[in-house]
Order: sequence, then C-alpha cells, then structure tokens
Amino acid sequence: MPDFQKSIDSIYKEVLESPDSSTVASYIPELASVESSKFGIHLIDTNQHNYAAGNSGEKFSVQSISKVLTLSMALGLIGEKIWRRVDVEPSGDPFNHLSLLEQENGIPRNPLINAGAIVIADILVTELENPKEDFLTYVRNLADDTSISYDEKVALSEKGTGFKNYAAANLLKSYGNLRNDVEDVLDFYFHQCSLSMSCKQLCDTFYLFMNRGRCKRDIGYLDINQIKRINALMLTCGFYDEAGEFAFEVGLPGKSGVGGGIVALLPNEFCVATWSPGLNKKGNSARGMQALERLTTMTELSIF
Amino acid sequence: MPDFQKSIDSIYKEVLESPDSSTVASYIPELASVESSKFGIHLIDTNQHNYAAGNSGEKFSVQSISKVLTLSMALGLIGEKIWRRVDVEPSGDPFNHLSLLEQENGIPRNPLINAGAIVIADILVTELENPKEDFLTYVRNLADDTSISYDEKVALSEKGTGFKNYAAANLLKSYGNLRNDVEDVLDFYFHQCSLSMSCKQLCDTFYLFMNRGRCKRDIGYLDINQIKRINALMLTCGFYDEAGEFAFEVGLPGKSGVGGGIVALLPNEFCVATWSPGLNKKGNSARGMQALERLTTMTELSIF
Amino acid sequence: MPDFQKSIDSIYKEVLESPDSSTVASYIPELASVESSKFGIHLIDTNQHNYAAGNSGEKFSVQSISKVLTLSMALGLIGEKIWRRVDVEPSGDPFNHLSLLEQENGIPRNPLINAGAIVIADILVTELENPKEDFLTYVRNLADDTSISYDEKVALSEKGTGFKNYAAANLLKSYGNLRNDVEDVLDFYFHQCSLSMSCKQLCDTFYLFMNRGRCKRDIGYLDINQIKRINALMLTCGFYDEAGEFAFEVGLPGKSGVGGGIVALLPNEFCVATWSPGLNKKGNSARGMQALERLTTMTELSIF
Amino acid sequence: MPDFQKSIDSIYKEVLESPDSSTVASYIPELASVESSKFGIHLIDTNQHNYAAGNSGEKFSVQSISKVLTLSMALGLIGEKIWRRVDVEPSGDPFNHLSLLEQENGIPRNPLINAGAIVIADILVTELENPKEDFLTYVRNLADDTSISYDEKVALSEKGTGFKNYAAANLLKSYGNLRNDVEDVLDFYFHQCSLSMSCKQLCDTFYLFMNRGRCKRDIGYLDINQIKRINALMLTCGFYDEAGEFAFEVGLPGKSGVGGGIVALLPNEFCVATWSPGLNKKGNSARGMQALERLTTMTELSIF
Repeated sequence: MPDFQKSIDSIYKEVLESPDSSTVASYIPELASVESSKFGIHLIDTNQHNYAAGNSGEKFSVQSISKVLTLSMALGLIGEKIWRRVDVEPSGDPFNHLSLLEQENGIPRNPLINAGAIVIADILVTELENPKEDFLTYVRNLADDTSISYDEKVALSEKGTGFKNYAAANLLKSYGNLRNDVEDVLDFYFHQCSLSMSCKQLCDTFYLFMNRGRCKRDIGYLDINQIKRINALMLTCGFYDEAGEFAFEVGLPGKSGVGGGIVALLPNEFCVATWSPGLNKKGNSARGMQALERLTTMTELSIF
Repeated sequence: MPDFQKSIDSIYKEVLESPDSSTVASYIPELASVESSKFGIHLIDTNQHNYAAGNSGEKFSVQSISKVLTLSMALGLIGEKIWRRVDVEPSGDPFNHLSLLEQENGIPRNPLINAGAIVIADILVTELENPKEDFLTYVRNLADDTSISYDEKVALSEKGTGFKNYAAANLLKSYGNLRNDVEDVLDFYFHQCSLSMSCKQLCDTFYLFMNRGRCKRDIGYLDINQIKRINALMLTCGFYDEAGEFAFEVGLPGKSGVGGGIVALLPNEFCVATWSPGLNKKGNSARGMQALERLTTMTELSIF
Repeated sequence: MPDFQKSIDSIYKEVLESPDSSTVASYIPELASVESSKFGIHLIDTNQHNYAAGNSGEKFSVQSISKVLTLSMALGLIGEKIWRRVDVEPSGDPFNHLSLLEQENGIPRNPLINAGAIVIADILVTELENPKEDFLTYVRNLADDTSISYDEKVALSEKGTGFKNYAAANLLKSYGNLRNDVEDVLDFYFHQCSLSMSCKQLCDTFYLFMNRGRCKRDIGYLDINQIKRINALMLTCGFYDEAGEFAFEVGLPGKSGVGGGIVALLPNEFCVATWSPGLNKKGNSARGMQALERLTTMTELSIF
Repeated sequence: MPDFQKSIDSIYKEVLESPDSSTVASYIPELASVESSKFGIHLIDTNQHNYAAGNSGEKFSVQSISKVLTLSMALGLIGEKIWRRVDVEPSGDPFNHLSLLEQENGIPRNPLINAGAIVIADILVTELENPKEDFLTYVRNLADDTSISYDEKVALSEKGTGFKNYAAANLLKSYGNLRNDVEDVLDFYFHQCSLSMSCKQLCDTFYLFMNRGRCKRDIGYLDINQIKRINALMLTCGFYDEAGEFAFEVGLPGKSGVGGGIVALLPNEFCVATWSPGLNKKGNSARGMQALERLTTMTELSIF
C-alpha cells in the first residue's frame, strides 16, 4: 500500500498551484454563491484509516452523486425489476438531453442521467412510507453519521428553476414510466440532490461500494452482484459525456455532481472524495478530476 | 365556377360508402367518446354562398386548428417579432417530438407544431389583458358568431393528461423561450384547443385567410403579406408529418385537428371544412382527407 | 396580366444595386471559378411571350434543379411505383444529411434531397438503355432546344470531390434501395447535375410544369395529377431547409441549385428563372430569392 | 488464484448444455458458412500457464477484435496525436450508425466503432510502408506466432458487401478526416478484419494489455498509460451498444467481433478468449458472453 497521506498532501499542493479556468455552476441559483477557491480531498482505505487535505470536512451540495445512493436503495428494495424501467447503457449525450428518451419510448438509458434518476425517485416514492425521511435515514445509516441532512434552500432553489427536470418527468409520465405525480417525484428528487455532505461523509457513505456491499459498520446492504452492477454503471455512465475520459484519466468507478463533488473507489482498496466547485465544460469538477488523475497515476492503483 | 353543391353531395355519398379503418383519438379522454360515424362538410365561396352536407352544423373540438387562429391574432398584435421566437420551416417529425426543440435550442420549427403553438400562446398571455376571453372574442368576431365557445370539459380533460405538452412547455422555459408560468400558458393553450365549432363556423372564421385578410363582414384583420405567410405555413406545416402528402393529394393550404376537423382554402376562391372523428395513422381525419382530395380532383381547383 | 417586362427591368435594377453578402459554392471546384457578379432573369408566360434582363442567355450549371427533371422522367416511365422507394415529405434537414436516411431504413424523405435524387437516378439507370444520352434527349425535347448539354468538366470535378454523395449512395445500397452499381448511378447523377442551361432554357424546359403537363410544343408528357405532385414537392421540398421561407417570401413552387439558378412557376400563368452564383447560408441563390420575392410582391401573383 | 482449468471445464459443459437462440452473422457472406455449434475457450495467466476447452485452437475471423490491435499499433506510432481525429467516448448507438458522425462533424466517437476504426486504418496506411504486411508482422510479433494470417476470401467477401463501411469512409473523407483514398483505406480495413486467429492466438496477442504493455516475450510495446487508455476504451466501448451490459455481466475490459470471438482481460491476472459463432441481437457472441459471465462470477475475479 502506498503512503496515501503523502500522496494526498502532494496532490493538494500541486492542484492549488495549477491554473484554473473552471466555472461554478450557475443554473441552480443557490449553488452559484459557493466560494470557488474551496478544495478538499478525503480518502478512506479498507482498514478504515482516513487521509485528508484542504476543505475535506466542509459540507457541499452533492447533487447528482445522490443518484448512486437512490439507485442503491431502490435496488435493495425491489431488486432486478428496476431494469424493466431503466436501461444500463451509456448515453453518449449530455446529462439533460431528452431526445434519446423520446427515441427510446420513455426508457431512460441509465439510472445516472437525470431522466433515469427521476424514474428511480419514482420507485422510491412508491416504495417508501415517508420517502424523504426514509432515504435520509438510509444515507445516515450507510455513513453512520446522523449529521447528514438536506439543504432545503438548495432544494427550493432547484424547484424554481429545474424546468428541464420538469420536462423530463412529464415526458416520462407521457410514456407511462412515472407512477406518481410529477410534483411528488420531483420534490423528492430535488431533495435527494440537495443532500449536504463533506468529502469525509461521502467516503463513509460510499464505503460499501468499495467493500462488496458491506458498510463501515460491517452491515451488508447489497450483494456482490448488485455492487458490481452499480460500480459498472458508475464507470460507464458516471460522468455525463465525459465518462470515457474519466475512465481513462482516472480509471476508477465514480460519480460527480454539479456542486463540485466527485467520489470514486477502487474495489477492495479505497474510496476517495474530492470537492472543488469549479466545473469544466462537461460539468465535472475540474480540480477534482485533476486530483484523482494524479492520485491513480502516482499510486499506480486503478482498475486497469 | 363549378357547381359546389353537386360536388359536395356526390363526395358525401362516396365517402360514406367507402370502407373505414380509422381510429378516434383516445389520448384526450373526452374526445374518445365522440361518435365515429359522424361526417360533415361545409364550403363557402367568395360570394359568401354556402354549400353543405351531413353533420356540417354540429360542433366538435377544433384542437390544433386553433393554432392558426392564435398565430393570426399574435401576428396582428406584435407583427414580425414573432419570428424571433419561432421558425417557419416544416419539421419532418411527428407533432409531439421534443428532439428538434433540443437540437435547436428552444426555437420551435414552426408555429403549427405543439411547441411552436405554446410559444404563440405565451405571446398572447403576455399581450392580452384577459387572454381566454379576448381570444374567444377575436374568434367570434372573425366568424361573426357569438355562439362559439370553449368546451371546459375537454380543456380539463387535456390538462389532466397533456404530459407531453407540459414537457414541451417546461423545455421551452428552460431555454428562456416562455415568459409566463407554465401553468398559465398551458391553461390558455388547453382552452384554445377546446374551442367547439362546426364546419360552418370554421368556414366563417377562416374566410379571411381566403379573402386576403378581410373577414366576412369585410373588416381587415391582416395584410396580404401576413395572410401569405400563414397560408404558406398551413401548406408546408399544417398536417404534421403528412404535410407533403396533403399538399399533393389536396393541393390547398389547410390545418387539421385530432378532433377530426380539417379546414382548407383556395385563395380568392373558397374555404372548406370537413369533420369526421376517425383519424389515420398520422393523426389526420381519414375521411376528411379523402373528401378534400375528391373535391380538388373533381373541380380541378387547387393551388398547383 | 401585369407588364412583366417592366417588372423585370425594375427588379433587375433594384437587385444589382442592393448590397451582397453571398458566397459562390466552392465544394465543387469547377463552380468556384464562376464570376459572382453575373445576374440574369427570364420569364415566359402562357402565351409563350418572353421577358428577360441581364445574363439571362448565359449558360450555367443547373445542379440540383435537374432533380425535378429526372423525377419527371422517372414518373413518366414507371409511374406511382416510384413512391415505394422514396417518400414525399419535407426533410427539415440540410440537403446532405444522412441521419434521416439511417433512421428511416434507407427510404429518402423526398426525391429532391440528394439521397432521394440518387434513388431516382438509379431508377433511370435501370430503365434507360443509354441513361445519359436518353435523359439529355428528354430535356432537349422538353425545351425544344438541342443546344442543351452536359458540362463534362463539372461532372468530373464533382466526381472527384462528391464524397457525401458516395456516402449516400453506399448507404442506400446497404439498405437495398440502390439496384445498380454505385459508380454507374453516381456517374449518371453527376452528369445530370452538370447540365448547362441558361435562364431562358430553364423556362422552356419547366414550361410543362406550369402548363398542366404539356410542353411548349403542346406535347403531353405527364398528366395533371403527376404535375400536381411535382409542383407540391417543389413547394414543400425544393429549397433544402429554407423551403418554408421560400414558400412565404415567394409563394411559388420552385427549385434551386448550388450553381446559383432558381426556377419557379405559377400554374397556368408563368414560369420564371433567375441566375446569380452567390449563395446565402442555406445554399440558395441570394439575389435569385430576392428577385423572385420582388416579382411576386410587385405583381401580387402567387399561389397564396 | 483459482483453479482455472476446473472453472473452464465446468463452464464449457454448462454452456454447451444451455439452450441457444443466437444467429450466425450473415451480412458478410463468407462468415455465414461457419458451423454454429463451434465453441472454444482459452485462458492465459500472468505466469503464461494456459487453460483451454473445446475448439480453442481453431481459427476464425476476428473481425472487430482487430480494432484494438490497429489502435495499439497506431498509438505506438504517433502517440496522443490520435485523439485529434477520434474521440474516446461511448457512442450509445449501434456499431454502424453514421448519424453521430454527421452531428459531430466527422470526428468518430471512439476508435472501436467502425468509423473510428477506419480513421485508425487511415493513420496506419499513412504511417506504414507496406500497411497490410507491416500490420500482420506487428500482430505476429505480439503473439510470437508466424502462423497468423489474413483470410483473403473473407476480406474479398466484405469488400463486395461492405456498403456501410464505404458510406462511413466517404463521409469521413467529406469531413477531411480521411487522408488516403477510400479504396486504399478500406482494402486495409477489410484485411485487418479478416485476420484469422484461434482463441489461443488471441490470448497470446492480447497478453500485453493484461501485462502493462509488455508482450509474452517481455518486450515493451506501449507504456502503462497507453495500456490504461486502451483498456478503458475496451470497457466503455468494446461491445457496441451492449457495453454497459458487458461491463456489468462480465466486469472486464474486452472486445467482440461478429465472427463470434470475444477477448477479455483482468489487468495483472489473466487474459481470456472465447469463440462461438452465434450472435445475440446486439451482435455479440451469445455463448461467449455467457461463458465469460460464468467465469468472473465463479472465480469472483473482475475489475469491480
């Protein structure tokens, strides 16, 4: 095993010194006000040793990263039936395009694009008694951390501006692939996206995807087959239309969010999260990608 | 001039005797209950002589035919500025597809597809003090007939099932091409579509498009240039992805609606409307198209 | 009837004085060398009176205008069977796109886009003993003018650079919608496009489309139904993705070519051709469109 | 390390006993004649121990599997400059669609779809003195096996029917992304696809992708970074529009061909190849996918 703390310190220094041409997401007004100079990184290994640098303990909006967690919960609840309503192939399209959805009669390409995540949200709204509360409890249990919560301001902000998500939900509804009311599903969806977590908390939560389905407290949530599926989806679909680039540059399954977070993992080895609000043109955290590329190159640890 | 009444009687007989494999529109529940055997035809010439057969005086839901009337009203109100927000080219796509809208950054292909008509509705909601009342008054004035009105049941029925229109409106909103609230615009849109009119009333209303912009009472509403534009749009875009077929088979500018109505006109000669609720695969009235094809073939009167 | 010579003289003057931001087509090397300042217009009425101005007698490459003539010849040879291999709807896409062809399994949208015209060329290669000679004879007979001929240099130039047409032909072949060898069909196609004709000769040739299927010498070539179909196709599909704009601005069925020619007609009234090599962004002659718009506005003669 | 021979024997038995609804590829006539009941599997581990069952020594047409080898050779020759002419993202589309190519102005989505592989072929035709001979020598050297060769009959058969590839090459040419003559590039391309190899030979050849760029004879061909890129591409793009499914079911970087072969590898562990001519609906070997899924499930060895 490499000296992770040394790697992380070196990456932290290197990234902060490199020039930055990224932009903070502005389409959700509440996100636009985040300080763009923030940068944090946290890594947890299989022995639950922790390594960190920068703003790794500061909370931010996880946004699309939450799609892995709702998928995970839904898979635990209803199992393989999920795949009747959402496919598992990369989309080859930016994250918000509806064209494919139309061409394919309302079956989203995968559960990590918006339309697919809205279908997963619909499943949870159907299956859970108190969807928002129950999902929050699920995430808190995974991370063993009750301080994780929604950011109502962000949820509200997205509700007022999330017209593309309303378009997607209504289109799904028109194809019969949304069982609940559009408003109910999107209320849940905007809340899941508003989850506020730090790099450390993301590592704690995603620990089970690196640990064959067992969380930090060694409780089993998913079987190895389900974990394999989720990791495969993160690798092929986790970075919008930059999935191929991330697979090469970093070589780890992972997921990004427009809040500037990225979480990635090497099965049976470690889980790592970064946060830097500045996004590249494809909507992924620029410094986060740079840091993770340095990490896997430096340590020579990747799935490839 | 041919003997229109003779032609119409002969067409009426012929159409009723021909086999019928059409289907009544079912996606708007209120429309599904219409009796499929109804068939009416009405023609008015430049001397305001009227010729009719069958259920030509019975009211039905005009649906998409109303798009020509909102376009006409909006063009009268704000003029050529309309074309900054909606294009004038045929779409080559079925009437409800959103793909093109995405590819072209929120500018609908033309004002006669749903997305384009929703933009026109948005313009009227902005420009009119009491949009629904004012538009109804406009139509009644064109036709010189105060018995024309909305069918609230149909409007409500579409509101509860019009998910693709909600998708289109939200997508337009996401591109900044909808100024008012989605709900307000669609409330207006569902009402305009619910206009209940007979074949005769459609002829009275569309008289001005055949008469260089002057209505039956000889009041000028649009100039010849605007009328030319609207007639050109009807010809190239009035029949979803069957516009080319209609241009050939019938050879008249016209517009259809899923309620089973079609209105068409030969500039400076006549205006004709048909109603038969059974639709062909492309969503146009099967018997209406047949009747109009017979009319222009029999009379050798078309624009070509 | 208006004083056509006066209108044409006035338009000629006006057009030459207006600013010009057009570009001569450069993708066929032989066309790039044409003098961009050329401008001609010719009109023939039903009494076969001729009106002209500018370079109306100078020959140029008719290019896509020839698609109407091959369609006309093929329709005369095998009739309605044509429509099994090519559709009649506007494409809503620029003239050289293959995407639609793929989506629609090798059936081109209409016979006036490149893929559709290549299918028509394939039909003629099958039906004619000496395709190039026989088609040339057909055109000469229509125009009653044996001086019309191919420009071998232009045909050769396009053969060496027409990769998109090779792509289209091979794609058609892969779908089984090309019966002859790609090389044979394209050799014919590049020749038909290389037809060299003046504005006057275009008017003489297209006379039958304005005259219900009878050419200048009063010989019938097509029945009224076939003429209606061709005129409808010119109106809805004759100007690439500017068909809607042309329908409105000019209001006549017509066809343009990248050589800078346009021919248009008002059924039973007149046929008109213009030539100016500078193209607008959509690939249609800029001054030609301007001249025709002026003509129909000035004379108040259009189909709408 | 698991007992690979035991696993393979068990899989061999299981696969042969399971029902089979696959079809042998028929679009290349020469491939249609292969006996559909053939099935072979071969595995080589990092100690160069070999494990095999069935027709693992019988040669078949590798077809698209060759795309990884031409990519590898081109990357060795001109390095990262490759990525100016071909992208690295999954296509989300069947393997032969040209639509994306048009939308993206002639830059293929990745080097493992046909259009991308044709660009790579073009690079090799430019860079190599005797392209076909030099590439064959390269493959023979990788595998340390001079018995590998082209199947001229297959190459010729594809040349006579490969219209979609001709369409793709011409489209690339029209965008300036093909430097050599279409015929020269496709002659090379059809030959690379016609490579005739056994499962054993595929394992020998692909050994370097599992062994950080060093072939069986421990000669370095590519650096670890280039190997990572190629493995990432195989994982995200190696199975047409079934890449996501393969990533999950099997969890290994790999590549399939319509000849019924699949090769896959676990970095630093093993390389495995299967052959069974029957294809599933997405064009991948049905029994090959089944066998590899069993292998990684049984041994619990995958990248996830």
